[in-house]
Amino acid sequence: MSQWKQIQQLEIRLLEHVDYLYDDNFPMDIRQGLASWIESQDWDTAANDESMATVLFTNLLSQLERVRSQEQNFLQRHNMKIIQQQLQVCQNPFILSCPGNESMTKKLFEQGPLEKSLQN
Amino acid sequence: MSQWKQIQQLEIRLLEHVDYLYDDNFPMDIRQGLASWIESQDWDTAANDESMATVLFTNLLSQLERVRSQEQNFLQRHNMKIIQQQLQVCQNPFILSCPGNESMTKKLFEQGPLEKSLQN
Repeated sequence: MSQWKQIQQLEIRLLEHVDYLYDDNFPMDIRQGLASWIESQDWDTAANDESMATVLFTNLLSQLERVRSQEQNFLQRHNMKIIQQQLQVCQNPFILSCPGNESMTKKLFEQGPLEKSLQN
Repeated sequence: MSQWKQIQQLEIRLLEHVDYLYDDNFPMDIRQGLASWIESQDWDTAANDESMATVLFTNLLSQLERVRSQEQNFLQRHNMKIIQQQLQVCQNPFILSCPGNESMTKKLFEQGPLEKSLQN
């Protein structure tokens, strides 16, 4: 079972903390849609290695395209398409100037431990 | 069957047009979550009547709160919460200065006929 599925079994009080981790800077749709892939990548290293971060970011776009094209739910497919378009505009994985001037890699790096701490 | 469900049975070529109707200014999550309620309101009149538009907008927020609180899917509940927060900041149904300077009522008014034209 992915870490993401385990998190969704937490009590409501803790799930509210998870809610706050995800916004337009890092949509929860990506976390859910790519759960297994995200959890199998080395974000700790990528957070300090720009070339690796660039590769991971490119792979993330490919994974998103794969998952979106297979998604049967119209609403989720639509939301993934919007997220894909936003990410494709901001090609820099370290300094995502849009939306919200946040780093995708940094976000992924920070959120893993935060989610884990909620489970403990 | 709601008009929204019928629309999702259109062929992919036409569904792509529906995709373009929905963005951050009017998230598809609202259209889907409140489908029956939206389709039973008089948006034509509200588009030219500010007091009625204000009532409909307030009712839309209440409906969104009702649907969100009953939603079992964690991701959809989370997305609805974010949309609710955005809408509560922009209290004017005619001039929604955020996000995107669009009128909710105008959007609802315009999208109904557009969706219908895709079905014909």
